[in-house]
Amino acid sequence: METKLQTTPYKGTTDTYPQDMLVRNFMFNTWTSVAKRFGFEEYDTPLIEETTLYIAKSGDEIASTQLYNFTDKGGREIAIRPEMTPSLARMIAAKKNELTLPLKWFNIGKYYRYEKPQKGRRREFVQLNVDIFGVPTLEAELEIFQYILAVMEEFKAPKETYELRVNNRYLLNYLFEDILKLSDEKKGKVGRAIDNYTKLGREAFIEYLKELELNDKQVEQVLEFLKWTLEDLKKIADKSEGAAQLLELFAKAKELGLTNIRFEPSIMRGLLYYTGTVIEMFDIGSKDNPRALLGGGRYDDLLTIFGEEKLPAFGFAWGDIVLEDYLKTYNLIPTTKTDTKVFLPLFDTKLYTYIQGIAKQLREKGINTEAQMTAIKFGNQLKYASKKNIPWVMIIGDDEINAKKVQLKNMATGEQNLVTLEEAMKIINS
Amino acid sequence: METKLQTTPYKGTTDTYPQDMLVRNFMFNTWTSVAKRFGFEEYDTPLIEETTLYIAKSGDEIASTQLYNFTDKGGREIAIRPEMTPSLARMIAAKKNELTLPLKWFNIGKYYRYEKPQKGRRREFVQLNVDIFGVPTLEAELEIFQYILAVMEEFKAPKETYELRVNNRYLLNYLFEDILKLSDEKKGKVGRAIDNYTKLGREAFIEYLKELELNDKQVEQVLEFLKWTLEDLKKIADKSEGAAQLLELFAKAKELGLTNIRFEPSIMRGLLYYTGTVIEMFDIGSKDNPRALLGGGRYDDLLTIFGEEKLPAFGFAWGDIVLEDYLKTYNLIPTTKTDTKVFLPLFDTKLYTYIQGIAKQLREKGINTEAQMTAIKFGNQLKYASKKNIPWVMIIGDDEINAKKVQLKNMATGEQNLVTLEEAMKIINS
Repeated sequence: METKLQTTPYKGTTDTYPQDMLVRNFMFNTWTSVAKRFGFEEYDTPLIEETTLYIAKSGDEIASTQLYNFTDKGGREIAIRPEMTPSLARMIAAKKNELTLPLKWFNIGKYYRYEKPQKGRRREFVQLNVDIFGVPTLEAELEIFQYILAVMEEFKAPKETYELRVNNRYLLNYLFEDILKLSDEKKGKVGRAIDNYTKLGREAFIEYLKELELNDKQVEQVLEFLKWTLEDLKKIADKSEGAAQLLELFAKAKELGLTNIRFEPSIMRGLLYYTGTVIEMFDIGSKDNPRALLGGGRYDDLLTIFGEEKLPAFGFAWGDIVLEDYLKTYNLIPTTKTDTKVFLPLFDTKLYTYIQGIAKQLREKGINTEAQMTAIKFGNQLKYASKKNIPWVMIIGDDEINAKKVQLKNMATGEQNLVTLEEAMKIINS
Repeated sequence: METKLQTTPYKGTTDTYPQDMLVRNFMFNTWTSVAKRFGFEEYDTPLIEETTLYIAKSGDEIASTQLYNFTDKGGREIAIRPEMTPSLARMIAAKKNELTLPLKWFNIGKYYRYEKPQKGRRREFVQLNVDIFGVPTLEAELEIFQYILAVMEEFKAPKETYELRVNNRYLLNYLFEDILKLSDEKKGKVGRAIDNYTKLGREAFIEYLKELELNDKQVEQVLEFLKWTLEDLKKIADKSEGAAQLLELFAKAKELGLTNIRFEPSIMRGLLYYTGTVIEMFDIGSKDNPRALLGGGRYDDLLTIFGEEKLPAFGFAWGDIVLEDYLKTYNLIPTTKTDTKVFLPLFDTKLYTYIQGIAKQLREKGINTEAQMTAIKFGNQLKYASKKNIPWVMIIGDDEINAKKVQLKNMATGEQNLVTLEEAMKIINS
């Protein structure tokens, strides 16, 4: 060939070899099985949308600098999805009158954002999205909280290592409008500062607020707000819808016995479309994973961008990268093994058809079977089975064929027995 | 909102609502479970690659007119993958010395091609890719054939409705070089004509060959070639490597008892990188699905584009769209049902916490449970459960709570019994 191509994947993306795929499937299968246990239904949307969908209601940063947008060969302005919610809202709006509410939907899919690759962030990532449509009351939030906590239990996550932090956009509006009396422009900027409070640190945060021309009193009020607890919310429950909602939500969560959730006034969420409750979950047991594990909120207004009436909606997205880091931090990923149960070596090319016949019978019993295709050295075949962690090897030569039996070798113990194929199947399946 | 957005998905793509997702998951789960039964391992690659990867070795049409390629915000020339093989070859080349051969890998993923949307073709589609690396002999082909036929059996496809057609690129070379003595330029054009033989029809095909300035004798030779059977191949087995390989392949397939495969001299495959065996599978029981269900071949040379030595490789891709059409043609898709087992209605908001507690216990036993979140009219709740095909409804009001029992309703028979939660779980799980 004339030009030698690079073997590295595109910047910010990664190749997933089978060993890594087992880890990812462990995460995805856990997300999926618990979602089904809660009655969530799976759906899917295209990877590409017309760019206008994201200009309409996503956060500034995504739409302006992080979008993979381009013009297709027919002149359409399109973009690879950077998040699910706009597509989902579009899908619901398209069939709003045919769908039976409430909808409890989930999807696991790929997304692209043009970002600087770093720990916890890649340009290509996978997200679980879980959403409930048609439930205006806080029971939607509680259903999602229970789902998230059930997934964490399924992962056997130690209780002291994670925390779901909850806030309410209406409470932030109360801060911006009733306490600080900010202009619309400043609201956005102060909001982004609060969103980055932990990252900035107290000093830089105060500096930044002063740059935004907040006076000393206002800065003091913001800092006070960030220390608020549920007790403080009680004092303003009659004045702030957000405070009232948060109090009701935490009272109900307590009744349900939910743990690992906490009111946190700095939770903001960058995306523009959120109304009411917003959530993020963090690793609180180590300093290895400072980024949020998941984030979401209520977005009752989003369907209006399609000219539809409002529809109550609450949902969240859970990324694969920080979750994998978290699970590794706490050794929660099971020792990855192959899905293959039996390996059939091949001693001689003339036995190929016979061995394939045995493999067929094993597979028809639902036993995952790999049969050697070429008659190389037996030792190398055993090494291959061992390296791949295949638990059983079924050895068949002329003697076994004549005796109508097989040698079944347990690769963990090294034990080997001459048994009939029927007996071998029973042992493997037991 | 100022502008009302469209709710239609991007041209050539489709939204997948939960009912459709059940159908797609039926296909994908069948592909996956049979792949695991054969010992294939799952892997994944990024959706985006640098454009050069596709310029190097894909077919002309894909690289020049069908590619979704663009420039990223950092000036890199990138493309959404139109097929898997180049990415897979890149991945293998990157770790060639660490990987234990043979590799038997599979992936199910999304692809984009800029095409005119029509029956059997969309711009976004899903493909199963199954590949074997490191097996130079025809046992790789036989392993793949057995996998394909096992999947068709798993789908309960009637034997008379499908056929795997097999050819060999070296046999085509024999036609082009030894029989027709064509120039390199004409080889490509005649190859594409043969690839489109069925689509064009005999008359238009002859016309086209004459336009390519093939003389009458050459045209006759091509038409003769297209009628060749295995018997004809025997006459040239010592002169054509392709003929010899095909004869050996069909002899071994016969020994294994494989059915539904046939030598078909018109199978060409457009992609440039194929060497040796090429395959396509067709619906032969109806005229509804003229497009190939799947296609693939041997591509022993592909790793050389990364400066690596050759590595034997055989694989194929199976698209979701034609398969779904095929399964629908023969009514092979099971009546789609929900994965949810039990529905818990809510009579009164004050019972919410109690009902949620019951739901939690059911889920902890692995029973997929949907619990009503808001206390709407009971009749509507029952209608919802019925519409969603949920097989059991567990009715709990004050009476049941006092009796520490539940009313378990079988939605298929209408039968309803007052039982303990334990008993209900046993009935549901039985």
